[in-house]
Amino acid sequence: MKVITKELSYRTKGNTDIIELSADLERLLSKQEIESGLVTVFVVGSTAGITTIEYESGLVEDFQKMFERLIPQNTRYAHNDRWHDGNGYAHVRASLLGSSCLIPLVDHKLCLGTWQQVILVDFDNRPRERKIIVQIMGEE
Amino acid sequence: MKVITKELSYRTKGNTDIIELSADLERLLSKQEIESGLVTVFVVGSTAGITTIEYESGLVEDFQKMFERLIPQNTRYAHNDRWHDGNGYAHVRASLLGSSCLIPLVDHKLCLGTWQQVILVDFDNRPRERKIIVQIMGEE
Amino acid sequence: MKVITKELSYRTKGNTDIIELSADLERLLSKQEIESGLVTVFVVGSTAGITTIEYESGLVEDFQKMFERLIPQNTRYAHNDRWHDGNGYAHVRASLLGSSCLIPLVDHKLCLGTWQQVILVDFDNRPRERKIIVQIMGEE
Repeated sequence: MKVITKELSYRTKGNTDIIELSADLERLLSKQEIESGLVTVFVVGSTAGITTIEYESGLVEDFQKMFERLIPQNTRYAHNDRWHDGNGYAHVRASLLGSSCLIPLVDHKLCLGTWQQVILVDFDNRPRERKIIVQIMGEE
Repeated sequence: MKVITKELSYRTKGNTDIIELSADLERLLSKQEIESGLVTVFVVGSTAGITTIEYESGLVEDFQKMFERLIPQNTRYAHNDRWHDGNGYAHVRASLLGSSCLIPLVDHKLCLGTWQQVILVDFDNRPRERKIIVQIMGEE
Repeated sequence: MKVITKELSYRTKGNTDIIELSADLERLLSKQEIESGLVTVFVVGSTAGITTIEYESGLVEDFQKMFERLIPQNTRYAHNDRWHDGNGYAHVRASLLGSSCLIPLVDHKLCLGTWQQVILVDFDNRPRERKIIVQIMGEE
């Protein structure tokens, strides 16, 4: 059993920008010695989240619109009143979505469905450089 | 330390069908050698999710209604415009809820509360056969 | 590789009370021998949840208000009709938010951002004593 910790980094556009991570994860995992175990994908920061989705342009738009409907950007937030950075909505969305995603790894492959990809969602109101921690724990 | 990966499968009715998994998980875990560690429950696919709930018929109905109120089935989704399969709502709900749930295992027992059960929520608009990956990682 | 399981307990006020856990987690982790791995924070019970947030009073209020707007306390719940304990809203909120949070541990430090803290959210309609399971799995 061992633990391998890697980092990935991405430039995002902010504003609920959605970036597909599965291809980079598969590439990273193919180079590691762990055969079976658990892969944790974690985003550092409090205005972004991680989840899985069928990554196609229609759903990217639907997922963004759902957040705008439920947690709108332009309503009153105590965070904005206090800090004047205008990203209160981004914090609230990120805390609801969650900062990590877990995927079992079996025979060097992530157990994702054909139409199930891992995504980073950057809710912040400006472009950001995001650090993703990928941790692989398991058996060689 | 070791990793054990098992599969469970379920036929669902779709339409935000909710299936209790804890009893099957306890049965599966009782046969394994791992005493303490982490249990990951992951659903393969992009229109279903996993969470914990007090599994009783009132809350099953309340949880389903909450999703219908926040992410209604019959509104416009770009996914439906493009693919005509009518399950855009199911994808958006699943991505918000998340595809996995983690439970610590101590002395061969899941650390769940008395009124806390693990559930599979199948949001798709038709019956499905669902594959659940159960991964147990820990010490014998 | 080893697993260490610890418990923390907190008295909450209920009513979507939010309690910061990161300082206690750091203290707990600094005494353990595991250097790199995965930290799971899990709340036992079905009316509370765990997530990450920038823990400042504005966002605490914004996050509480978001839940009241999306899943209001005083609307009809089948759970309340049946059990008359008035906390149907608390169960639904908890099942949506999720009962656990995962943070990678590297060189004895949690990989959290500067403005990213782990919180317990107690949705129940009365003060509660809450048990948090902290599980650390990794390499010494």
